[in-house]
Amino acid sequence: MFVRKKVVVLVSGGMDSVAALYDAHREHQVVVALSFDYGSKHNHREIPFAAWHCQKLGVPHRVIALGFMGELFKSDLLKPGGAIPDGHYEEQSMKQTVVPFRNGILLSIAGGYAESIEAQGLVIAAHAGDHAIYPDCREDFMRAMADAIRLGTYARVEILRPFIHLTKAQIAGHGHRLGVDFSRTWSCYKGGDLHCGTCGTCVERREAFQEARLADPTSYVAQTPLPPRPTPVSTG
Amino acid sequence: MFVRKKVVVLVSGGMDSVAALYDAHREHQVVVALSFDYGSKHNHREIPFAAWHCQKLGVPHRVIALGFMGELFKSDLLKPGGAIPDGHYEEQSMKQTVVPFRNGILLSIAGGYAESIEAQGLVIAAHAGDHAIYPDCREDFMRAMADAIRLGTYARVEILRPFIHLTKAQIAGHGHRLGVDFSRTWSCYKGGDLHCGTCGTCVERREAFQEARLADPTSYVAQTPLPPRPTPVSTG
Repeated sequence: MFVRKKVVVLVSGGMDSVAALYDAHREHQVVVALSFDYGSKHNHREIPFAAWHCQKLGVPHRVIALGFMGELFKSDLLKPGGAIPDGHYEEQSMKQTVVPFRNGILLSIAGGYAESIEAQGLVIAAHAGDHAIYPDCREDFMRAMADAIRLGTYARVEILRPFIHLTKAQIAGHGHRLGVDFSRTWSCYKGGDLHCGTCGTCVERREAFQEARLADPTSYVAQTPLPPRPTPVSTG
Repeated sequence: MFVRKKVVVLVSGGMDSVAALYDAHREHQVVVALSFDYGSKHNHREIPFAAWHCQKLGVPHRVIALGFMGELFKSDLLKPGGAIPDGHYEEQSMKQTVVPFRNGILLSIAGGYAESIEAQGLVIAAHAGDHAIYPDCREDFMRAMADAIRLGTYARVEILRPFIHLTKAQIAGHGHRLGVDFSRTWSCYKGGDLHCGTCGTCVERREAFQEARLADPTSYVAQTPLPPRPTPVSTG
């Protein structure tokens, strides 16, 4: 039997997590939506969109500032001068955009926060297309982390991954049916005024709308032809 | 064969973690010692002691400020007005001093930091007397968290728990042999000018020196007779 839960939703302001917010708002009681500002180039573009959707749905929104990540951690996603590589995600080019153990840190904090406000679950928009090159996106990590949060909290807080079997295109379709205005979501890692249209996350965004046969509402700096897709890599 | 590792040590400034710092300094290469200021009543007493020992050993020391914990999380350890209970740790009285999922959060951040500075291990002074009432001190949590950090980092960062089979008294003895000046460590959760001598952590501190047959170098506000020890609770 399906049970409505009191949940915290991790909402970055990207298309997947915003769709997860709408999904959780329908399926559960969203106690709080949580965004993290860890000083990346695109946080200042994403978080206002997260706030916009929370306000639209009447969901309380909290932003947790993780200043230490910018000060201490090494990643091109965080350094003001680091170059974000173009094209599809690939091991050599994307490894430099890793924020070390980011998902572990965000999930831990969200788990503690969920416990402190007596929520039972933590919704994260992990999906079938998450990248095997990021170790903290892989299935074995997510299972261990879910165990740690369940075992390490009095309330046995659960991680819920409603989109784990969906592709990004399927999430776009699902979000569209839930009424998500995707023009108010952000993907581009470069964090400029407009989506660049050419970095790894922009390419995936464009492909998701194309595969879902949805009009892409995004304004891109450049609309170059989508590159050929590399052979899929197992996320297992 | 024993292998020297590049490690990060979690040092709160309490007697266990300071002893772990000296132990790791002998056994490994301590790249950085890490303290967390999460706004608890005793952080401002502990952290200067952590810094003192790091300076003595020539180990770099970093303090990560986690302001959000004080702002968002609910715990009597964090609230300025919350009363810290006296006497031995017990379920009813100590549950209110829980910082939700504290060890999960601190270990995750330390794991990401270890990866960012290319350390291979993370030393934490978890020991046989850690309290089963705190879910994030239990063995099953620690194993899941260690899996999550190993699986979620490129370098497969390991959690090292050199004291996991020692009691607090045995740690005191071990630290004494390593030259630790325990007068420069802090235990009391009340965080006053002197150790109160009567809260749960002060009682444990006093018992540890007594059981280790070491002179207790601590100045206490009150030196009431130690209360009778409750029946030991399994930490498994």
